[in-house]
Amino acid sequence: MLDHTHAPEAASWIDAALGHADFPIQNLPMGVFRRDGGAPRVGVAIGDRVLDARAAVELGLLDGLEPASRQALAAPTLNAWMALPAAARTALRHAVFALLDANHPQRARHAALAGQLLHPQTECEMLLPADIGDYTDFYAGIHHATQVGKLFRPDNPLMPNYKHVPIAYHGRASSIRPSGAPVRRPTGQVRTAKGVDVPALRPSAQLDFELELAIWIGPGNPLGAPVPLASAAGHAAGYGLLNDWSARDIQAWEYQPLGPFQGKNFASTVSPWIVTADALAPFRCAPMARGSDDPELLPYLRDDADSATGGLAVALEARLSTARMRELALDPHRLAASDTRHLYWTPAQMVAQHTLGGCNLRPGDLLGSGTISTPDDGGHGSLLELTRGGTRPIELPSGETRLFLEAGDEILLTAYCQRDGYPRIGFGESRARIID
Amino acid sequence: MLDHTHAPEAASWIDAALGHADFPIQNLPMGVFRRDGGAPRVGVAIGDRVLDARAAVELGLLDGLEPASRQALAAPTLNAWMALPAAARTALRHAVFALLDANHPQRARHAALAGQLLHPQTECEMLLPADIGDYTDFYAGIHHATQVGKLFRPDNPLMPNYKHVPIAYHGRASSIRPSGAPVRRPTGQVRTAKGVDVPALRPSAQLDFELELAIWIGPGNPLGAPVPLASAAGHAAGYGLLNDWSARDIQAWEYQPLGPFQGKNFASTVSPWIVTADALAPFRCAPMARGSDDPELLPYLRDDADSATGGLAVALEARLSTARMRELALDPHRLAASDTRHLYWTPAQMVAQHTLGGCNLRPGDLLGSGTISTPDDGGHGSLLELTRGGTRPIELPSGETRLFLEAGDEILLTAYCQRDGYPRIGFGESRARIID
Repeated sequence: MLDHTHAPEAASWIDAALGHADFPIQNLPMGVFRRDGGAPRVGVAIGDRVLDARAAVELGLLDGLEPASRQALAAPTLNAWMALPAAARTALRHAVFALLDANHPQRARHAALAGQLLHPQTECEMLLPADIGDYTDFYAGIHHATQVGKLFRPDNPLMPNYKHVPIAYHGRASSIRPSGAPVRRPTGQVRTAKGVDVPALRPSAQLDFELELAIWIGPGNPLGAPVPLASAAGHAAGYGLLNDWSARDIQAWEYQPLGPFQGKNFASTVSPWIVTADALAPFRCAPMARGSDDPELLPYLRDDADSATGGLAVALEARLSTARMRELALDPHRLAASDTRHLYWTPAQMVAQHTLGGCNLRPGDLLGSGTISTPDDGGHGSLLELTRGGTRPIELPSGETRLFLEAGDEILLTAYCQRDGYPRIGFGESRARIID
Repeated sequence: MLDHTHAPEAASWIDAALGHADFPIQNLPMGVFRRDGGAPRVGVAIGDRVLDARAAVELGLLDGLEPASRQALAAPTLNAWMALPAAARTALRHAVFALLDANHPQRARHAALAGQLLHPQTECEMLLPADIGDYTDFYAGIHHATQVGKLFRPDNPLMPNYKHVPIAYHGRASSIRPSGAPVRRPTGQVRTAKGVDVPALRPSAQLDFELELAIWIGPGNPLGAPVPLASAAGHAAGYGLLNDWSARDIQAWEYQPLGPFQGKNFASTVSPWIVTADALAPFRCAPMARGSDDPELLPYLRDDADSATGGLAVALEARLSTARMRELALDPHRLAASDTRHLYWTPAQMVAQHTLGGCNLRPGDLLGSGTISTPDDGGHGSLLELTRGGTRPIELPSGETRLFLEAGDEILLTAYCQRDGYPRIGFGESRARIID
């Protein structure tokens, strides 16, 4: 639902927020930061600043909010914020908007407190936004599923279940890190040669990234009480970027019969700012059109509202910079430009599917969308696709080539929403460098 | 290492502990309980009583322990206890043993405090022993893997990787419940008929149990720092029973290509008492002998100590009681008698494998062993095996038959260790009833 917080003419009294590519006042993403190694605090990104939400509560600037909302802003993680009902999260957005609004009657009072309320983002260390109870990775990027499937089964790339059920697997929560934390190349069992069922212990030679949308869950559901599709959207508190690092050679040897394990669990990187469901309201869209040959969905996955506006229009980009490129002062090389409109399933369908059998989702749980690729070459969200299974090297502006990632390589994921009549809002970034 | 706490002649001043089938003074398993809906407290099972560990700390009876150990006993979960180094957990065992020892010089003082220290187990509600960060399920029961594999691939039941790498997948932590919590039959997508790739939405008609060993992790490792096999055993703080409920029809339709998801994530049941690694010291044994045709293990999975005593000799049983059987006052029917000696991989190998690529384990993480079956008919740890894939009904003493579980059916898992010259110690139970 659009309201005054989405209005294109809205502006903050913080000059740097006006026209900021990622964080104008229409965005107001939530995160957890600390300064000088201090205690974690909830913050809101505005321009090149972080609003210290706890300080705002302590200064009495958010007294109009319910106690649970104020407590959530004074907590060391966003789990309590995610646990709020969607309506309370919206009220909280309105209160923060008012505090930063250039046209608010109390603007002068607010601006006078800027020294206590605002920190430069460059002075803030961004932490994981939540204690992640469980992490689930979906497989909703149909072009990725098709392109990866083709590498192994050229005639029949998609499994028969793909268009009936949103496929997912459980991932590892403990090894999720915020943007900036380095990723150590994993060692594992890999086949000694292609098609040979004898393993050797080696550092992965096929380290890859995956470009995904992160969906932060809240408030969730009790065990045994599925969330119907009609109310599922209210349980996606916000969105971010997820790089689901993958060791393809480890994965290829281990994954039968129980799925990916050590090929994935050494690290995942999330962007630290949670773009709220409210902020994304102008960028909802119809989900991907199902093909005329596609099977009819079972009724629990169909809903008029979801069919109309259950999709999201978020532009996604993945870039690579190598150590050599940084030496040469070359910009990161764009590997892929994709879009969440290439998701076959909506976030609400993922929530409804996940809880269908009674599984409980908790505030702070993380869903990955699966790798989001385009059907064409420009938007392949993994090196596995970009290099056709590690057979066609990509060329970089430094003259280097890559099949998979090498030490010093840094992957940078970014995302933004843009639509006529609305200011652009961005997701910040997920950035991490490979170390050996 | 065996010490005075394992001595067969040791006895508690609590009469009911002497010769108790599960909880003599040589066991001293750790759990979390509450009374009358009060706050969770750490307890130790002794005979038919629960020792209130927090009360013991507050009464100054454990002042000889390090502060971190005393704090762990005053906590609302066992995560802090699991975070202790193995040597601190052993010291804690010694201190609790001294408090309960019939031959301790302070016995009279201790016994005089019984009213403040001990509660009847019947008055204690047992809770989950820890906040479970991540749950991983291994597949180390080779006879189960073989028997299930045969149902689908009669000529080639085990995957080529099976004897090289301890296979596992990530499970769902949020839906793990302690013994006693009912299990609601999940609804999910299932094939409309065998071999037909069209799904329908139905309550699972193939609800199954799985008989597994639970391994509780502590202290664990930092991200990027694998635990070598030689020190891996010190990161298994204790053991319990795990029933990894499975909806076979949902699993069969969903599991390609990413493994089990909704066929498993609706519920798992753990026994509430953690039998410590220390208590199990007399029952270590050589791991399962590898066949002469089995491949040589990679060095990181081989270690003299693990090859000598890395195995566990724990007898396991699974029983079923139906609503009708309870009406007729019939005892639960034994479905399976198995043993952890049928595990192809040791707990230490599982820890070493899990962390090989750098994945961090945290105190309170849970590993399942995988279903532990015998090669013969008497010890099949799942109905899938017992009924040959749902084709041969089992007969119950009530005259009923079962292919899979029905509403009102209760599965009871128990386990114990027994060896000449040592008192029997038991695991308590994992019990849960199916509701529709």
